[in-house]
Amino acid sequence: MQKIWQKSEKLKSSFLTQIVEDFTVGNDYQLDQKLIPYDLKASQAHAQMLHKIGILSKNELAKLTKGLLEIKVLWKKGKFVIQKSDEDCHTAIEKFLTTKYGEVGKKIHTGRSRNDQVLVAIRLFQKESLNKFFVQTQDLINSFKEKIKVIGNIKMPGYTHMQRAMPSTVGMWLSGFVSSLEDNLVLLKSTQKIIDQNPLGSAAGFGENILGINREYTAKKLGFAKVQKNPMYCAYSRGKFENIILQSLNNFMLDFGKFSNDLLLFTTKEFNFFILSDEFLTGSSIMPQKKNYDVLELLRGKCSIFLGYQYQIQEIIKNLPSGYNRDFQLIKEPFFNAIKLFEQCLSMMNLIVQNLEAKKENLENACSEEIYATDKVYELVKQGVSFRKAYQKIGQEFE
Amino acid sequence: MQKIWQKSEKLKSSFLTQIVEDFTVGNDYQLDQKLIPYDLKASQAHAQMLHKIGILSKNELAKLTKGLLEIKVLWKKGKFVIQKSDEDCHTAIEKFLTTKYGEVGKKIHTGRSRNDQVLVAIRLFQKESLNKFFVQTQDLINSFKEKIKVIGNIKMPGYTHMQRAMPSTVGMWLSGFVSSLEDNLVLLKSTQKIIDQNPLGSAAGFGENILGINREYTAKKLGFAKVQKNPMYCAYSRGKFENIILQSLNNFMLDFGKFSNDLLLFTTKEFNFFILSDEFLTGSSIMPQKKNYDVLELLRGKCSIFLGYQYQIQEIIKNLPSGYNRDFQLIKEPFFNAIKLFEQCLSMMNLIVQNLEAKKENLENACSEEIYATDKVYELVKQGVSFRKAYQKIGQEFE
Amino acid sequence: MQKIWQKSEKLKSSFLTQIVEDFTVGNDYQLDQKLIPYDLKASQAHAQMLHKIGILSKNELAKLTKGLLEIKVLWKKGKFVIQKSDEDCHTAIEKFLTTKYGEVGKKIHTGRSRNDQVLVAIRLFQKESLNKFFVQTQDLINSFKEKIKVIGNIKMPGYTHMQRAMPSTVGMWLSGFVSSLEDNLVLLKSTQKIIDQNPLGSAAGFGENILGINREYTAKKLGFAKVQKNPMYCAYSRGKFENIILQSLNNFMLDFGKFSNDLLLFTTKEFNFFILSDEFLTGSSIMPQKKNYDVLELLRGKCSIFLGYQYQIQEIIKNLPSGYNRDFQLIKEPFFNAIKLFEQCLSMMNLIVQNLEAKKENLENACSEEIYATDKVYELVKQGVSFRKAYQKIGQEFE
Amino acid sequence: MQKIWQKSEKLKSSFLTQIVEDFTVGNDYQLDQKLIPYDLKASQAHAQMLHKIGILSKNELAKLTKGLLEIKVLWKKGKFVIQKSDEDCHTAIEKFLTTKYGEVGKKIHTGRSRNDQVLVAIRLFQKESLNKFFVQTQDLINSFKEKIKVIGNIKMPGYTHMQRAMPSTVGMWLSGFVSSLEDNLVLLKSTQKIIDQNPLGSAAGFGENILGINREYTAKKLGFAKVQKNPMYCAYSRGKFENIILQSLNNFMLDFGKFSNDLLLFTTKEFNFFILSDEFLTGSSIMPQKKNYDVLELLRGKCSIFLGYQYQIQEIIKNLPSGYNRDFQLIKEPFFNAIKLFEQCLSMMNLIVQNLEAKKENLENACSEEIYATDKVYELVKQGVSFRKAYQKIGQEFE
Repeated sequence: MQKIWQKSEKLKSSFLTQIVEDFTVGNDYQLDQKLIPYDLKASQAHAQMLHKIGILSKNELAKLTKGLLEIKVLWKKGKFVIQKSDEDCHTAIEKFLTTKYGEVGKKIHTGRSRNDQVLVAIRLFQKESLNKFFVQTQDLINSFKEKIKVIGNIKMPGYTHMQRAMPSTVGMWLSGFVSSLEDNLVLLKSTQKIIDQNPLGSAAGFGENILGINREYTAKKLGFAKVQKNPMYCAYSRGKFENIILQSLNNFMLDFGKFSNDLLLFTTKEFNFFILSDEFLTGSSIMPQKKNYDVLELLRGKCSIFLGYQYQIQEIIKNLPSGYNRDFQLIKEPFFNAIKLFEQCLSMMNLIVQNLEAKKENLENACSEEIYATDKVYELVKQGVSFRKAYQKIGQEFE
Repeated sequence: MQKIWQKSEKLKSSFLTQIVEDFTVGNDYQLDQKLIPYDLKASQAHAQMLHKIGILSKNELAKLTKGLLEIKVLWKKGKFVIQKSDEDCHTAIEKFLTTKYGEVGKKIHTGRSRNDQVLVAIRLFQKESLNKFFVQTQDLINSFKEKIKVIGNIKMPGYTHMQRAMPSTVGMWLSGFVSSLEDNLVLLKSTQKIIDQNPLGSAAGFGENILGINREYTAKKLGFAKVQKNPMYCAYSRGKFENIILQSLNNFMLDFGKFSNDLLLFTTKEFNFFILSDEFLTGSSIMPQKKNYDVLELLRGKCSIFLGYQYQIQEIIKNLPSGYNRDFQLIKEPFFNAIKLFEQCLSMMNLIVQNLEAKKENLENACSEEIYATDKVYELVKQGVSFRKAYQKIGQEFE
Repeated sequence: MQKIWQKSEKLKSSFLTQIVEDFTVGNDYQLDQKLIPYDLKASQAHAQMLHKIGILSKNELAKLTKGLLEIKVLWKKGKFVIQKSDEDCHTAIEKFLTTKYGEVGKKIHTGRSRNDQVLVAIRLFQKESLNKFFVQTQDLINSFKEKIKVIGNIKMPGYTHMQRAMPSTVGMWLSGFVSSLEDNLVLLKSTQKIIDQNPLGSAAGFGENILGINREYTAKKLGFAKVQKNPMYCAYSRGKFENIILQSLNNFMLDFGKFSNDLLLFTTKEFNFFILSDEFLTGSSIMPQKKNYDVLELLRGKCSIFLGYQYQIQEIIKNLPSGYNRDFQLIKEPFFNAIKLFEQCLSMMNLIVQNLEAKKENLENACSEEIYATDKVYELVKQGVSFRKAYQKIGQEFE
Repeated sequence: MQKIWQKSEKLKSSFLTQIVEDFTVGNDYQLDQKLIPYDLKASQAHAQMLHKIGILSKNELAKLTKGLLEIKVLWKKGKFVIQKSDEDCHTAIEKFLTTKYGEVGKKIHTGRSRNDQVLVAIRLFQKESLNKFFVQTQDLINSFKEKIKVIGNIKMPGYTHMQRAMPSTVGMWLSGFVSSLEDNLVLLKSTQKIIDQNPLGSAAGFGENILGINREYTAKKLGFAKVQKNPMYCAYSRGKFENIILQSLNNFMLDFGKFSNDLLLFTTKEFNFFILSDEFLTGSSIMPQKKNYDVLELLRGKCSIFLGYQYQIQEIIKNLPSGYNRDFQLIKEPFFNAIKLFEQCLSMMNLIVQNLEAKKENLENACSEEIYATDKVYELVKQGVSFRKAYQKIGQEFE
């Protein structure tokens, strides 16, 4: 298939061309499989707008609408598969329309660039993902709250420096995560607000002044809160928006990592404070007695993997010249991977919290005398002893 | 000086103790010099609260208030200097109060831990810094807007893939940064909202139930929007809050880096689109002809340094057990460094934008014929030719 | 399929079990497809050793040898495919042997753990990859040297601070990369030396003392320079060795990134110093005139992606307790991705260097007068003027 | 003070100039304080070479030699302090020589650039630091070996997945670190080999052809193994060499982090396997009973800080154009900080290992029955039962 930017056939057969194509296309054509419904939606809005401004006739719009719908149906059945030679979903879609509906297919790209298409399709995907994560995080918060109702009152030692420190409760430990998640949602919400801008119509990254592309119209059709006006900013918001989304999700991953790490400590034989049911445990190929919390280890490790995806995107965009650069293409894979990984971890966290069981006796037994030392100091303080004197006095008991 | 946590004198003289102290205190005592006014403010609110709940008499509160004020005066004169043996500002302040006012000095620490103090003092510093950055960014945005009024209409080529692509203007280039900065401010604002919580009263990270510490009271006195309720979350919001602040500021630094990198390209002899006045230029020790844009190179490089500070903080908190860990102490230095560096770069950006001069003739001459190719395609489209055919037709002119 | 560590069937049907399996297995079973030949090789050596120490009879060894060979043949034909339910290649291989050869298949795992198998299979893959990269880098160095013979003598300006600075040549620019690559090979060689240790026989990470596993024997059979003695170190050299390999390859990627970035500058219309043939260039979907160096942009971007993979591995192993942790599993994917990406970039670099063409006239014309200023200073110095005076004098010509 | 690259006095007084100077000089003038002896050594070799090639008379060389020696003496007394207005140590030294010895001072810079000077001074510092670290690591290895002699035979459980797994010993745990450190030394040695190249004489990064600078001569005088020939590579080996040094040291830091993390687990009240003497422990400002292993927490955290310094350097050099760029200046601070931090941590590790005490009874008691399960499997294997059957059989005991 000729690329939409290819002017002649002459280079097609060369061996070198093949290698370069392999290098530049990468696995973009596979990644794009999931972008198809979003591109279809944006292409439909774009076609409607082209009709509105007089580029497409009513009849032409009807054909394109039909064609886009046909692709959607094929895609749902798994029968619209992008070929490597198509390079990406955008070429594949234009090719389908041109092959089936002829001349009108050659009009769909009027007034937009491929990057324009990528931008808007990914943006729609981002909005949908973040909406979903917002709701799922609220579910997780509810799971925490339900669990706190059941086991929250059980006493446990509070640890500082990994040493027993103060009297605490299971509820205090668990509700810390609730507070943290709630704060994360505040940042997530403002991230959602920022990305809710229509990039479609930025054309090649410098807008256009001849055809009269109506960006307000497509923004409305696609459900964006507003138009992202500056077309150069549209171009380099690619990468930037992926980065702020992952920055925002980083905070959740760090919480999941901390929770897992806490639990890995609290489920050792030596602590023995909590357990998960056998479904969560895996064995060893060599040690018949082992029951391991692989799930928690993987959550801990996936936190590092996730941060690495954000790092990749951040490093790609750092110090790039403004204007479109092909480097942007490389953002797609870590971004999609990160979104998928986040979804997995969020679901797994929910299951873990729901299935968490406290070993009440062990927790209470661990509340050994020394954790009440500060309380004893305060009792002296209430009797009028100055804090520092009381501290010295009680401290002597532990020398 | 005996540390506030030191129970006996017996270890003081050992050589090993000295080495361990060097290792653990690090340069914290120097970093803390800038935290003094914030700790004084928080200590004052804490003392008032202790009076309110009956721990301190009116007379004791008056003494402490006087003492804290004296320290403030000394500090302003540069005469309140934390010694290495004091470990940190908190010990130094308690020592001063105890030395000068005796018994009452030993009461100031009632119901709070050192980490409690660090948390609240840093939080106050953070709020102040972010407020300042918010205003200064608005100044920078204004500088951009003023500059656009003057040179915005000058034509310039828009670049994609570092190649001339489409007709653009200086205004389009500059206003992209305005849009980006405005979006960054949305995230900054929600960061400000999150950190506006009073951590004071979390005690050792598990609250306290004996003395009746009134956290709403100190929140109000210190101007916090609310109390950060869960004391364990207070403890590990250390690091987390520094991290979200730097994440938020990262976005600005990435814009500064991109702007610098653009300008470094546009000020090469080969492009020659813009200049800065001689005050911004530095020379070479060996090449007498050189005029270099070191300022822009340093802005570009400082973007990497800044991201590195955020990395350090993120990596320290990743997978730490909940509860206070001494690792937190290491967050202070990269955080303070990052804040200082950000302030420098924000000011420098403002100066650069204000002093930017466009070379009109060169910019216009660079608008060579090929950048109008897409416009020509659109003219054909307006005449009814399908986009893809028009593209092929115009494309042949450039083979 | 029952996992090799699964003791009973009772958990198999549960819905929760399924979700946990999805989470823990991830795409390991797909990644492992490429590890099969290495595991077969190591399994063969292990079986021979088990025979040597009397665990397997001659007949049993023959059966296992036959079975392993059969798997190899199937694998080559693409017919040995690991199922998700197999979890990994190790289970799939043991299952095949047990199904086909019965009791003897249940003996192959004697004295080794799965992690042992993963360690040795990956180690063999690593050795092979690094040997290949060593040779291919020497090819790249030769391509540079050949190119220097052809275009090395062409004059070009040397740039500092992105400004014309001193007279230089194309050869000086290109041979800098030769020197850098040669230094990188020194580090690569010592990395190769370090990883050339046999981890097989570390069992579950603590060795074994009952069966008399002969680690020297398998080391010799597998071509390792020595046995990696400490079994705990074997366990956590997983991740560590991947990390030092990627650290070592980072240096090459940084060179490729620098070279690409240089060329992206030198191929702008404004510099116009070098070109690549049309096979390397791609067009725009909207701008018919564009010829873009996407290949170079992707090389530049892939440098960031590569560093991100190293980051992921480093962050997973940082502060992990010694002893096997499941987090290690997550190292496989970034490592394999990084190795594949490196191979691509190394090949592409070679092609680029081979096809690089210099625009002699443009390069020479760019050697404008000012770059000879320092030479003029030196001429004065040769006449006895002190350097700093000569510098001031020549400098006045450029005020 | 006029900078060595400053041509006129006219810009000196401007307010803007002052701000730009603050931004560009940063704290370089303070960092350079430690580079003085290395610059003096290199300047001396350079002067001798200038004499050898006829630029300096015997008398002039004598004066410069005397001047350089005087600076050394002043520096040792803390009386040669670089002023901010001097910008760096190189200007300060040239100024001293010119002020005191007149015309001849203006000749010292002949045939070299400031970056040339920075390169060679830092290179000498690097060589010295790595030599020191090599020896100190051998000391640490010896401390481990001594400790193993004393407590190595004590039994302890080996942990996988943070759960008790197999029988092990304190010696197996400790000697894993010995193996790892020894491998790290192999990489360190090749790093030392790579940096042992003389960069002096690369001039402004493009060499020089007029004066006949003799680079072999200065290499010999300064003790370098060879000349770093390509002058452009000299320029960008700045940053690259710092990066490979820190990459190499990263491996040690990761070991220190792992060791600390292990010990933090093993010193919890719940594990209670090891202790350090009271000199290593710190208390709490609020909890009188606490004894905390802050030293270990800081070692763990400093690992992240160290990696962050390497990150900063790597990110600065990534995708920089070849040729000197001012961004390089920003490498100095993270590099010096990293070297200092490494030295601290290496010393602290040594002290910790020397002072480590095992709680024999607790370690042995923790060797509970289940860790011998695999041994039981092997006993059955020795009786002829297939491994997998034996595994299933023993496994049933733990259901």
